[in-house]
Amino acid sequence: MGSLIVSAVVNCIAYADGLRDKNLEIGTISEALKQPDRFIWIGLHEPSEELLRHVQKEFGLHDLAIEDAHRAHQRPKIEMYGDSLFIVLRTAQLNNQQPRIEFGETHFFVGSRYIVSVRHGSSLAYTDVRARCETKPQLLRKGPAFALYALMDSIVDQYFPIVDALELELQALEEKIFSETFSHDTTAQIYELKRQLLEVKRAVSPLIDICNRLMRFDLDFIAVDTQPYFRDVYGHAIRINEMVDILRELLTTALEANFSLVSISQNEVTKKFAGWAAIIALPTMIAGIYGMNFQWMPELSWHYSYPLILILTIVLCIFLYMRFKRSGWL
Amino acid sequence: MGSLIVSAVVNCIAYADGLRDKNLEIGTISEALKQPDRFIWIGLHEPSEELLRHVQKEFGLHDLAIEDAHRAHQRPKIEMYGDSLFIVLRTAQLNNQQPRIEFGETHFFVGSRYIVSVRHGSSLAYTDVRARCETKPQLLRKGPAFALYALMDSIVDQYFPIVDALELELQALEEKIFSETFSHDTTAQIYELKRQLLEVKRAVSPLIDICNRLMRFDLDFIAVDTQPYFRDVYGHAIRINEMVDILRELLTTALEANFSLVSISQNEVTKKFAGWAAIIALPTMIAGIYGMNFQWMPELSWHYSYPLILILTIVLCIFLYMRFKRSGWL
Amino acid sequence: MGSLIVSAVVNCIAYADGLRDKNLEIGTISEALKQPDRFIWIGLHEPSEELLRHVQKEFGLHDLAIEDAHRAHQRPKIEMYGDSLFIVLRTAQLNNQQPRIEFGETHFFVGSRYIVSVRHGSSLAYTDVRARCETKPQLLRKGPAFALYALMDSIVDQYFPIVDALELELQALEEKIFSETFSHDTTAQIYELKRQLLEVKRAVSPLIDICNRLMRFDLDFIAVDTQPYFRDVYGHAIRINEMVDILRELLTTALEANFSLVSISQNEVTKKFAGWAAIIALPTMIAGIYGMNFQWMPELSWHYSYPLILILTIVLCIFLYMRFKRSGWL
Amino acid sequence: MGSLIVSAVVNCIAYADGLRDKNLEIGTISEALKQPDRFIWIGLHEPSEELLRHVQKEFGLHDLAIEDAHRAHQRPKIEMYGDSLFIVLRTAQLNNQQPRIEFGETHFFVGSRYIVSVRHGSSLAYTDVRARCETKPQLLRKGPAFALYALMDSIVDQYFPIVDALELELQALEEKIFSETFSHDTTAQIYELKRQLLEVKRAVSPLIDICNRLMRFDLDFIAVDTQPYFRDVYGHAIRINEMVDILRELLTTALEANFSLVSISQNEVTKKFAGWAAIIALPTMIAGIYGMNFQWMPELSWHYSYPLILILTIVLCIFLYMRFKRSGWL
Amino acid sequence: MGSLIVSAVVNCIAYADGLRDKNLEIGTISEALKQPDRFIWIGLHEPSEELLRHVQKEFGLHDLAIEDAHRAHQRPKIEMYGDSLFIVLRTAQLNNQQPRIEFGETHFFVGSRYIVSVRHGSSLAYTDVRARCETKPQLLRKGPAFALYALMDSIVDQYFPIVDALELELQALEEKIFSETFSHDTTAQIYELKRQLLEVKRAVSPLIDICNRLMRFDLDFIAVDTQPYFRDVYGHAIRINEMVDILRELLTTALEANFSLVSISQNEVTKKFAGWAAIIALPTMIAGIYGMNFQWMPELSWHYSYPLILILTIVLCIFLYMRFKRSGWL
Repeated sequence: MGSLIVSAVVNCIAYADGLRDKNLEIGTISEALKQPDRFIWIGLHEPSEELLRHVQKEFGLHDLAIEDAHRAHQRPKIEMYGDSLFIVLRTAQLNNQQPRIEFGETHFFVGSRYIVSVRHGSSLAYTDVRARCETKPQLLRKGPAFALYALMDSIVDQYFPIVDALELELQALEEKIFSETFSHDTTAQIYELKRQLLEVKRAVSPLIDICNRLMRFDLDFIAVDTQPYFRDVYGHAIRINEMVDILRELLTTALEANFSLVSISQNEVTKKFAGWAAIIALPTMIAGIYGMNFQWMPELSWHYSYPLILILTIVLCIFLYMRFKRSGWL
Repeated sequence: MGSLIVSAVVNCIAYADGLRDKNLEIGTISEALKQPDRFIWIGLHEPSEELLRHVQKEFGLHDLAIEDAHRAHQRPKIEMYGDSLFIVLRTAQLNNQQPRIEFGETHFFVGSRYIVSVRHGSSLAYTDVRARCETKPQLLRKGPAFALYALMDSIVDQYFPIVDALELELQALEEKIFSETFSHDTTAQIYELKRQLLEVKRAVSPLIDICNRLMRFDLDFIAVDTQPYFRDVYGHAIRINEMVDILRELLTTALEANFSLVSISQNEVTKKFAGWAAIIALPTMIAGIYGMNFQWMPELSWHYSYPLILILTIVLCIFLYMRFKRSGWL
Repeated sequence: MGSLIVSAVVNCIAYADGLRDKNLEIGTISEALKQPDRFIWIGLHEPSEELLRHVQKEFGLHDLAIEDAHRAHQRPKIEMYGDSLFIVLRTAQLNNQQPRIEFGETHFFVGSRYIVSVRHGSSLAYTDVRARCETKPQLLRKGPAFALYALMDSIVDQYFPIVDALELELQALEEKIFSETFSHDTTAQIYELKRQLLEVKRAVSPLIDICNRLMRFDLDFIAVDTQPYFRDVYGHAIRINEMVDILRELLTTALEANFSLVSISQNEVTKKFAGWAAIIALPTMIAGIYGMNFQWMPELSWHYSYPLILILTIVLCIFLYMRFKRSGWL
Repeated sequence: MGSLIVSAVVNCIAYADGLRDKNLEIGTISEALKQPDRFIWIGLHEPSEELLRHVQKEFGLHDLAIEDAHRAHQRPKIEMYGDSLFIVLRTAQLNNQQPRIEFGETHFFVGSRYIVSVRHGSSLAYTDVRARCETKPQLLRKGPAFALYALMDSIVDQYFPIVDALELELQALEEKIFSETFSHDTTAQIYELKRQLLEVKRAVSPLIDICNRLMRFDLDFIAVDTQPYFRDVYGHAIRINEMVDILRELLTTALEANFSLVSISQNEVTKKFAGWAAIIALPTMIAGIYGMNFQWMPELSWHYSYPLILILTIVLCIFLYMRFKRSGWL
Repeated sequence: MGSLIVSAVVNCIAYADGLRDKNLEIGTISEALKQPDRFIWIGLHEPSEELLRHVQKEFGLHDLAIEDAHRAHQRPKIEMYGDSLFIVLRTAQLNNQQPRIEFGETHFFVGSRYIVSVRHGSSLAYTDVRARCETKPQLLRKGPAFALYALMDSIVDQYFPIVDALELELQALEEKIFSETFSHDTTAQIYELKRQLLEVKRAVSPLIDICNRLMRFDLDFIAVDTQPYFRDVYGHAIRINEMVDILRELLTTALEANFSLVSISQNEVTKKFAGWAAIIALPTMIAGIYGMNFQWMPELSWHYSYPLILILTIVLCIFLYMRFKRSGWL
């Protein structure tokens, strides 16, 4: 096999009785499977089609599953081909430098004596998960089902910090909304947050069904005592879903509240404007009248007309001001 | 065991035939369980991991349940590990000084001869519940299932005053909305109320499923004659849910009504402003015309021009005023 | 027994073969039940706890049901305690003087040889229902199940005039909305109607499930030939529900239409205002220009300047008026 | 029997082996039923209670069904009383002169050897359906079930032209909405269309459940080979439902789009108004300044002040005009 | 048979053991079916009723299915008539010149030894699909079920580029919305996109049920090893559905965001207008006052009144400008 193929193989290890037995070459798997009480855990990263075909031959995997695993861009799903499971999950990571969510995909082939993970796009390597499993041989002894649980659990748990980050973003938006300075950016950010919530929901919600079916499948390699583990993953998936749904509903309400506040502000601006317009228009009108050029306008020749008119106008303006103030227009 | 551990143990009592038998040390539980026809009711409050591990050993509890009970921040749920139930509920209390809802969490481990409650965060102690149960030995004789019912019932009943408080808040908001003084605060309060309703719903709605599954589980320690009790809790959970849903729908309508009223008010303000603007602009225009400095403006030299123009202008303004009044603009 | 107790007993009658046998004292029920082929129909109105406890003893009713029946304020529901049914329904009546809906509650205890109705709050007495049943002994012969049907049917049928009244109210609101005089009252009434619809829905919608379960319960005292009767009640409950849902959807659309009409009106007001403002501002501006005091303004000294400028201004205003008219602004 | 009764009998015919055997009097039905291999198809139109009671006696129909058939105003439903089916459907017709939908009701009683149709309100007579059935004796031979299918199919097919008409109405509304002349009528028509869609949905949606149950009922007179026919009706009902749902969603979006367009127009009007107001207010202000009567205003005495100020003002206005034009305000 | 008929027959080929056996005339089908281990794959394009009747006779198809296949305009559905399947699917293609979606319809008749496809309206011919199948005889050997899968898969896959195109359209709309130049066209395009999404959803969503039922039907010609293929189609249908739903929700939010931005812009325009109006109205008012013609106005005769008043006015305007600037009105 070429080096290109091998570089895609992150790990390929046989386990006996929950303990690491030895590292294998992809080509020696069938050999290794001849020994009883062993299972093989392979980790691949964006493998070539050639490598996948090789793995297919070793474990007798289904054509459709291999095609899916190669093409990627699948919806999270679980399929049972004969006595082999094929699971697709979406992974997600926060890119902290440029705060957005990056999605990837992981595919699992699980049989009674093997588990193969195939990573695509943005996701953490599963070496940590493998290391943690190897510290608990009494659990890893349960076989590939426990490894599957450990991998799924680690994928689902990556969504919690993401949902927390989205929650923080909503809080920041709320502050902007209720601070009453309405900007186009706030609306654009609400829209962007909605899009991200929908993407997270789309990645997580199929997990509920996947866990459900994992527990219902009558497979001998998913022992009764591993079911609580999958129920645990199921619970986490439900919780993330619920958090996303609440964020979505709050976001909708926030958009409406934003809208409502803009209306209220518009109302206040109009009232303020109308009030001051009246206060300025009145003296302008009075001044206009005494600016007329009629020959016979007796007031013009009276000595105290000017101060009287000025005072009258000011009094009227003060009266208007107080009336508007009282009725909340100013 | 250290004093830190012991301080987390609120109570640890064995019951025989519905009657309090004796207080136990955590360390003597296995001893006590040797006597038949006894069950043990333990109340813990934010226990250390060490204490939880101890309890785990005594009753043979599942790892995942113990981890959940220690980490808290779980979604309400019910899990069956072997012949032991693990239940997570969210508790809630009104903080009256600073009117907001404080949530806590209580976890239950229930087996055929024990019940362990683990309180986290804000919640009342369950000593009252225990006291009330002890006054009804004929019911407590039914075993841990009845104690579980009593505890769940007391948790669910704490939501009724909360929902009532939220209902009062909505009524206060309605009054503000329909009093036609639109403030930013009202909108912010509507948003805050929505958030609280969603949190209560999130805490209560899983209870429906939990009660349902409690009745469906085929467990020998949930006797047929305790099922009506869990159905009672179920009914209360449904009622709280329904009340929250109605409040949510009313709140949505209230937000829309608020919005609609702001629009109507805006409409009225604009009409009023337009009306008065016309009434002031007309004399200003007429005055402007007679303020022109043309040499040949015959009206200027006529003797009664000034009063005539004044009267004409006033008549026009009155006409405008009445027309606007009639068409509802003023 | 005290007179207070007895006053709460509206009726207590034994029936034999569909015919009224004799009036009973509450205390003699067990006696009467010794005779075969008889069933007892008791009507209570806001009974004291003492009376309820007495009835409980006579028929062996469950504690939880008696507590519910005493406390009232339950959600409509059906419970089966042993071989006895407990049903809670919400009754409703239009208060015509002050047009609002008054809700009450009726509880039923039904066994193979008895039916007890317990009325709370606003509801008609069931003497009419009893009278109508007694005219059809061939049906009443079917036992308490038929009496239960007759009572439930009469309760459900009381919702039809209520829904009709709400429909009339919506029609009145529609007329107000489309008459284009937008008032705060209309919006407040829309909100109030929404609240009433939600309350009616909350009272009626559980009935669908109750009827469904009544037909599914395998009880010997609900004979196969009474099932069509409960299906009839079920059909009525569905119909009321559907009517309420349609009213809710129309109401939502009405609120949106109201809102939309206010906007359109605002648009028209603004256009009209802008148009007239232009028509008034133009002559004001021209007059202002010829009101300037420059020494060298040749037009001022020309003889026909004044009438020419006046005519020019009027022509400009007419031109503006026609342009605005054509583009729909005036 | 009186003539009043007979006039309500549209047709009463016995069929043998899919062929018309002979016309019957209502009174001779039991006679006719004695002959084997015959079934009777009766068409009634708004029958009197007396006639219905007569039919009830002949076929042994259930009281509740007869009451429903007489009172009408039922929700579409299907009931099985013993070995007899009772079906209620809502019929609809477009009234072309005054374009609105007129609803009627048809009830069917179906047994193994009879089918009775009872028409109420607006609906076509079923003589056409009967005629078409009689041209296919090989199908009519299947018995009353096929006649039922033919009648139901003809009722459901009447909804297609109605939904098409509603679709055309929506298209007409869309044109009005996007032509940007906002009128109160358009909003009122949107509301009216929504009401009609809800009425059609209410009439058609129960049909899905009715067809479903027709196929599930284990009745000997609904042979396996007639089931595809009811599935056909079922498919049509689903399609109408779906069309109505899409129209409803489009209508909601249309109302929102209308609203949005009114807002955009309001925005444009305000900008245009503000722009022109500025262009007119500027010369007014300048003219005002040179209209002041100060004794020492050197500009007033300069010879070219007037034309200079005029030109300056005009230049400023042109500058404003171009700036507003560039920023899209004019 | 006439040439008109033959022109509608795109292909009519018998397959033996997954390999093309020979082209057939429609008239010789029954002959060909006498040989065992053969199945026939016929492709028709808008066939005449005569041709359909001919095919019906050859394979014994059901009347209702043939009627549907001839009339077209059906909702996607699956029907089982005896041992023959009838499937209706909607096909779709992007018309690139005039960017809109063109829908067509394809009907399938599938039996244990035949598959007939009937194309109506806009769709690609299935010759490519057939060619691809013929390259995999090991799969085509599975019989008509595999051919059905290949055809369905190709139809469903045509929706992916369409959904991608709609997604691009939404992105273009988003840019327009957030660029803050609100045009009527954007709203009209949002509406049009909504309509297209609803049409795609209507075409694709029934596919989920169709695939589901295909897997549940207990038909001998759908072998267990072809089920994963239909599950694959099912997965694609779900994915398209999900993408359409997300686009719909984003579109709704986009419409609201657009609306919200228009409001914010309106708010800003009003503030800007009010601010500038005040800055222009103030000097106009002051100028008006000193334009009054009172004989005794001492300021008029002071020598520096004019420059002082001018400076005062300018200072006031600058003060106003800065105040408005600070409060965000300008």
